[in-house]
Amino acid sequence: MKVGILGAGQLGRMLALAGIPMNMEFVLFDPAADACGRHLGEFINASFDDEASLQMFADKVDVITVEFEHIPVKSLEWLNKSVPVYPPPAIVAAAQDRLLEKQLFTRLEIPNASYQAVDNEQQFLDYCSGAKRSLVAKSRHAGYDGKGQARIHAGTDLHSAWKELAGVPMIVEDMVAFDREVSVVAVRNTQGDTAFYPLSQNRHANGILDVTDVSLNDPLMTQAEDYAQRIMDELNYVGVLTVEFFDCGGELMANEMAPRVHNSGHWTIEGAETSQFENHLRAICGLPLGSTQSTGPSMMFNVVGEMPARESVLAIPGAHWHDYGKQPRQGRKLGHITLTAENSQQLQERQTLLQAVLHK
Amino acid sequence: MKVGILGAGQLGRMLALAGIPMNMEFVLFDPAADACGRHLGEFINASFDDEASLQMFADKVDVITVEFEHIPVKSLEWLNKSVPVYPPPAIVAAAQDRLLEKQLFTRLEIPNASYQAVDNEQQFLDYCSGAKRSLVAKSRHAGYDGKGQARIHAGTDLHSAWKELAGVPMIVEDMVAFDREVSVVAVRNTQGDTAFYPLSQNRHANGILDVTDVSLNDPLMTQAEDYAQRIMDELNYVGVLTVEFFDCGGELMANEMAPRVHNSGHWTIEGAETSQFENHLRAICGLPLGSTQSTGPSMMFNVVGEMPARESVLAIPGAHWHDYGKQPRQGRKLGHITLTAENSQQLQERQTLLQAVLHK
Repeated sequence: MKVGILGAGQLGRMLALAGIPMNMEFVLFDPAADACGRHLGEFINASFDDEASLQMFADKVDVITVEFEHIPVKSLEWLNKSVPVYPPPAIVAAAQDRLLEKQLFTRLEIPNASYQAVDNEQQFLDYCSGAKRSLVAKSRHAGYDGKGQARIHAGTDLHSAWKELAGVPMIVEDMVAFDREVSVVAVRNTQGDTAFYPLSQNRHANGILDVTDVSLNDPLMTQAEDYAQRIMDELNYVGVLTVEFFDCGGELMANEMAPRVHNSGHWTIEGAETSQFENHLRAICGLPLGSTQSTGPSMMFNVVGEMPARESVLAIPGAHWHDYGKQPRQGRKLGHITLTAENSQQLQERQTLLQAVLHK
Repeated sequence: MKVGILGAGQLGRMLALAGIPMNMEFVLFDPAADACGRHLGEFINASFDDEASLQMFADKVDVITVEFEHIPVKSLEWLNKSVPVYPPPAIVAAAQDRLLEKQLFTRLEIPNASYQAVDNEQQFLDYCSGAKRSLVAKSRHAGYDGKGQARIHAGTDLHSAWKELAGVPMIVEDMVAFDREVSVVAVRNTQGDTAFYPLSQNRHANGILDVTDVSLNDPLMTQAEDYAQRIMDELNYVGVLTVEFFDCGGELMANEMAPRVHNSGHWTIEGAETSQFENHLRAICGLPLGSTQSTGPSMMFNVVGEMPARESVLAIPGAHWHDYGKQPRQGRKLGHITLTAENSQQLQERQTLLQAVLHK
């Protein structure tokens, strides 16, 4: 089985690492010549709209998937004519546009923050100046890791805010007062079987995921599973789907979804019976899904900007080191560390050791 | 950190798969052009005594290790002049020769079967014809997976047996009446820290390892650890070392050792906190060792000659599929399947399901 992956960053890299033991082979496609997954299979270094390269790519593989959702839908649709593309291009398109995403949530009766679509400055000024609470403006397209967002409070200079967002089509949402941010990593295979990883609780820093904490019996798991199941059924989804929620006093509000393996699911490599990466591959290749059960409490810490001392991290019991091999740059995700433990108290102790090394 | 591996079969492949997440890079060296680990790094396809290729190999890497012990010691010693080779060449030499191995066990007061070194037919006939019990003749060199062995009982035609073994230098051992075959996978890093995986119980079929069963609290663990520790201390060992024993009524007798990651340790990929492959790399790179604790009961089933239906195996909960991507051939190890479970009863149920698929 030869799998094509559009995008050869750390997600493509971890997908390939999960598939090679199952004797899957990979062709990775990325416009960046130094993409960190480039060595894990055949590498095609071309733009995502370079038709000749896409043709060559399609000719080599049995199935195609995406590492991230910001790939031209036109290219996905074109590829899908000759090779199955999972998740289906239409779903990737929906996940690229916050407005379509919100409309989907609403249609499926999944609670989400009140919002207004805004296409020009006048609409923006009208809606924001009349608002009774704080708002978040989010560009409809190409937003991730907190990019393309602006918070609007009483007293915010609306003209500057509009300029900052470069006047692109956007949605303006009520800012949600939440207790926690949580996410569910779900998976559905070509046969329609589904599975769900335990809910993870996520903490962000500077708009980027910082820490994921997997509590084993989160009371909101059933609610999250139900919502993710609705989305996957509605879309006839195939692959891993991640849905991020706000926990507002025990009620979940959907924030956004990602049609792919997700940073908040990296803990599954060591912390679950089957990793999100292996299950994504099983799903798109029509194989039975593996158990999503966690093997104990675990936490994941992102490493951004600079890797800590490897020896110090590896000296901590239960610490699993992932260095993506990327050039360090401020604000860039370079790796992650997963901590596993037998019980919560042991996890807490290990966390204290790790935080000392990470200076957190 | 760039690691050179002599041998690019499944062991080299799994070593590289364990190291890539830690951002290690690999150069794999193998005389077989189709070695199944060839894609996991830079590949040098040359004979193990091709000096120009060995030089090129040495120039590219920071540390060198071996996938298996049957590599010319002369080459290892030559490489060791410019790049550290672990385990040290002298130890690999000892593991290549059953006589040196037996002498080591005896010197360290590790019980092992009575034996006689035999260099010619007359010695062979004299020793065997005078024996009061069944014997096993084993060629001193190049024996693995039951190759180069012959059993000698009362009535065996000794002339034919000698011919069958091609008259090579050998040892003739008392055949041991044992209850079980067990092995311990041990590891020691450059700093001298050691760690030991739980004892595994091994069942062979046609001289090849068939099933490994990891019981969590084997009463002989302390004895096995003590013996493995003696060997590693004596040799100033670095890397993973596997020692196979016979359990004779609660007393261990050393059978043989392998200076490398071992088939009876494959279960550690999913069944232990840190795999034998990761710990071997940590050991030779001077990093702290990872926990060798098992994460629950597990079993490993070798796949020899022909792979079973992937879908049927993956449909079994807790089944982890490893297909090395090798051409099928009778008697060839093609892959393995590890079963993990929460408790012994669940493992037993899953084993029944798997055995039905494997027709065992």
